[in-house]
Amino acid sequence: MSVTAALGFLASGVTAGIKESGDPDLALVVNRGPRRAAAGVFTSNRVQAAPVRWSRTVLADGRISAVVLNSGGANACTGPGGADDARTMAERTARALSVPVPDVAVCSTGLIGVRLPMDRVTAGIDTAAAALSPDGGEDAAVAIKTTDSVHKTAVAGGAGFTVGGMAKGAGMLAPGLATMLVVLTTDAVVESDLLDAVLRHAVRTTFDRVDSDGCMSTNDTVLLLASGASGVTPTASDLAAAVRTVCDDLARQLIGDAEGASKEIEVAVVGAASEADAVEVGRSIARNNLLKCALHGEDPNWGRVLSAIGTTSAAFDPDRLDVAMNGVWVCRDGAEGESREKVDLSDRRITITVDLRTGGSSAVVWTNDLTAEYVHENSAYSS
Amino acid sequence: MSVTAALGFLASGVTAGIKESGDPDLALVVNRGPRRAAAGVFTSNRVQAAPVRWSRTVLADGRISAVVLNSGGANACTGPGGADDARTMAERTARALSVPVPDVAVCSTGLIGVRLPMDRVTAGIDTAAAALSPDGGEDAAVAIKTTDSVHKTAVAGGAGFTVGGMAKGAGMLAPGLATMLVVLTTDAVVESDLLDAVLRHAVRTTFDRVDSDGCMSTNDTVLLLASGASGVTPTASDLAAAVRTVCDDLARQLIGDAEGASKEIEVAVVGAASEADAVEVGRSIARNNLLKCALHGEDPNWGRVLSAIGTTSAAFDPDRLDVAMNGVWVCRDGAEGESREKVDLSDRRITITVDLRTGGSSAVVWTNDLTAEYVHENSAYSS
Repeated sequence: MSVTAALGFLASGVTAGIKESGDPDLALVVNRGPRRAAAGVFTSNRVQAAPVRWSRTVLADGRISAVVLNSGGANACTGPGGADDARTMAERTARALSVPVPDVAVCSTGLIGVRLPMDRVTAGIDTAAAALSPDGGEDAAVAIKTTDSVHKTAVAGGAGFTVGGMAKGAGMLAPGLATMLVVLTTDAVVESDLLDAVLRHAVRTTFDRVDSDGCMSTNDTVLLLASGASGVTPTASDLAAAVRTVCDDLARQLIGDAEGASKEIEVAVVGAASEADAVEVGRSIARNNLLKCALHGEDPNWGRVLSAIGTTSAAFDPDRLDVAMNGVWVCRDGAEGESREKVDLSDRRITITVDLRTGGSSAVVWTNDLTAEYVHENSAYSS
Repeated sequence: MSVTAALGFLASGVTAGIKESGDPDLALVVNRGPRRAAAGVFTSNRVQAAPVRWSRTVLADGRISAVVLNSGGANACTGPGGADDARTMAERTARALSVPVPDVAVCSTGLIGVRLPMDRVTAGIDTAAAALSPDGGEDAAVAIKTTDSVHKTAVAGGAGFTVGGMAKGAGMLAPGLATMLVVLTTDAVVESDLLDAVLRHAVRTTFDRVDSDGCMSTNDTVLLLASGASGVTPTASDLAAAVRTVCDDLARQLIGDAEGASKEIEVAVVGAASEADAVEVGRSIARNNLLKCALHGEDPNWGRVLSAIGTTSAAFDPDRLDVAMNGVWVCRDGAEGESREKVDLSDRRITITVDLRTGGSSAVVWTNDLTAEYVHENSAYSS
């Protein structure tokens, strides 16, 4: 049910002709109210796409009535013309839906540096507006796919309210958000300030901990819209739990569908002096190409884990590091521990546990292996 | 001629049986004097191999008479036993050459986390000592290879003096030194303080600017030994020029032979507010897997260059960034510039130029493309 699982929302997904493939490439998500609170988190990349700049601006008042999304082009690094295009998308959507222009957020994904075919985009917006439906969540999720092999949706229920969501993203997955567009909806009655706090809290330990290939996008956007249509005002913690559940579900779907990946790797760092240390160590391991190749080859090469840890500024003693692969402590005190022969890396899911033995903090970072298929997909993407 | 191009040096390379392949795997470089000044630069990885710890200690007095090097095992993450092994290698070498133990540096390269077969190593040291020759530089360079497809040597002459060198390294190439062992020699008359300054200056803009795969080794070592055998005391600038020439030559050979690479990529960052900014931007581009895949596919995907720049803290305006690929300015003012159709990436060498248009500083970072062969070599390395 995706974004239309929550009451008060309509959605649609259509083929506007932006993609040469003829696959669906334009989606709308509309909040019919009665409330229109919204929150958003955007890429921390300093090179930001035009739709990100637009959406950040219109979201400043904590209110969004609709989101227009397209795949087939990122509208990033497109100059003043690209900024005009993002605004035009919002204006056309506002007109089609009879809502104020500053209440429309815009999301784009696809190749960087290419202008959108605006004739097709604007016509597509009208088509999508006509196709809006309380059952349109799946269609919307399909229309935002790029190299995703499957569309991604999730739903979580609270006491009398619902949180739904959709996501796209399969490459350029990295912190400060994976290259992804995510729209979350809820029918809970909630003010935008609380919505913002709940969303940031959820993103920090879900999407921000996904690091498939270390590459940070220009377009990452996570939006959360609240209609209040359930009439239920949940406690902050109930709402936070439901939002986090949906974010976590979608984040794992992103890792599960990452370009060319054959492994889903959980890097759990424990015994850290701080959560920041744990995250830094987890990310360093998640980004180590040599380790990611070894795990692809199902080789428990823990030396590459240690060499990655050694590049961080986290607090640890190199001679007191412990590392486990799928529960086998192959490294103890910074040297060989249990036999690597005991490690079975044949499953798709792999867990690497690092004990820094310095403090009580921990963090989990999710990543993928590095494969020839990843190279192939990303060397042929735009040519 | 490698390390024996300079007067006053002997070298050898033999098969000790550390490698299962039967290829040469143990080398000696001996400074016969009359002087024995030395300087060294080591990995900045906080997880440091036993031989790095040993060599750093014995080099503290600026004096080295011999270097013993092995391939086939890194002696890293090997605990107290590994530390004993490094010391034993120095002791055995000192005995064979009749020099003090604290005058022997040790270098190892190969798989992390595995103890060396010390019986073979010590016997190999005796064999290597017996094989020492003023023509042994090539043999030594061959014996330190791991996945290198060719051995790497370089020589530069100054006014009455010579600098020679050898290097190994083909994977795990990253800053704070590429996984590499480098031994440089000179017959110039020079004190260890100047030698240290000259070496650090040369390394900073050569080996430290090589970033093949973003992975920093536990074993990187660059040593420079001065025999004074020429009787010539060069000016500091003449010596610096010759040392930098040899370092630059060897660094480019490392990039030219990087594991699985099909492209040698020069990332030149100009117009930066500081050299540190230029290096940060260059490294970020050099480490972007998506871009490295695109270049492998000969796709001038400049959007990935911009997304990499955007992750840095360097001073720049996203709307004033210019990017050229092989001289074609495909990005102007942060948006599309000349047609990407004009870019020909079919040569092995590719130059990416980024103009931050902020200041007058610049830097060059060298990297490689990301290929299926890299994945293959590194997923099968230890299994």
